[in-house]
Amino acid sequence: MRETATRKADVLAALEQQADLWLCTADLAGRPHLIPVSAWWDGTYLAIATAGASRTARNMKVNRAVRVAAGSPSDAIMIDGEVVENSAVDDSAELAGGFAAAVGWDPREVGAGWLFFRLRPTRIQAYRGYDELEGRDVMRDSRWLA
Amino acid sequence: MRETATRKADVLAALEQQADLWLCTADLAGRPHLIPVSAWWDGTYLAIATAGASRTARNMKVNRAVRVAAGSPSDAIMIDGEVVENSAVDDSAELAGGFAAAVGWDPREVGAGWLFFRLRPTRIQAYRGYDELEGRDVMRDSRWLA
Repeated sequence: MRETATRKADVLAALEQQADLWLCTADLAGRPHLIPVSAWWDGTYLAIATAGASRTARNMKVNRAVRVAAGSPSDAIMIDGEVVENSAVDDSAELAGGFAAAVGWDPREVGAGWLFFRLRPTRIQAYRGYDELEGRDVMRDSRWLA
Repeated sequence: MRETATRKADVLAALEQQADLWLCTADLAGRPHLIPVSAWWDGTYLAIATAGASRTARNMKVNRAVRVAAGSPSDAIMIDGEVVENSAVDDSAELAGGFAAAVGWDPREVGAGWLFFRLRPTRIQAYRGYDELEGRDVMRDSRWLA
């Protein structure tokens, strides 16, 4: 079983790969939604981009609570987060530059009406199967535990 | 770009592997939740097992709408579904036998108060990145499109 510090290091390594994540949102009536998304981890926030008309964007405009998965089901990283900001990609040159450099594509080039959402992790858990459920918290209340 | 029939075959092959999936649920206030789960695909339903006290179980007891991801973000299978049934694992010998044979562990042996939930897919989409978004539906209204 990994120590908390090891799990934190593994979480950071996974986020710094800038790989696609799973993003879970819901509308205010409780209808859940889930999509794969490119995400830029800048060390503090996750930035994701999606079409403004998508269910994911509509959910996050009214409901700040999100949950994100990285890794795989057998090496899971679960992130509870909140939406702290959204902005039109065309009005967000700095964010767009960082995002494009990290993930390899630029949301300003894929269509009109795309938005950035900046997500703040509040809780992060890392576990490899049931045997690691104990001690899975590596962040609580937006603070790293190691 | 894959044809619908090919995507359906790929979906069925992925589900028949009985690999762990990502299960997205929400409470009635819209708080989303996401976990990795073992799932048994019997050709019609997905059966999953979870502790009755878990957020996932509590969500599914009051909110039938779920969304499931299989595959990876770059080879995504997205399943909208509804909870059609739940039962205590100790009262579900047939389900437990099929589940254990498929996924390799038996929820009757992991603790008290575990429940099975049977999920019916209503819509299934399969796409490998943005280039395959068009034509991604392989099931609608619980009917395969090919």
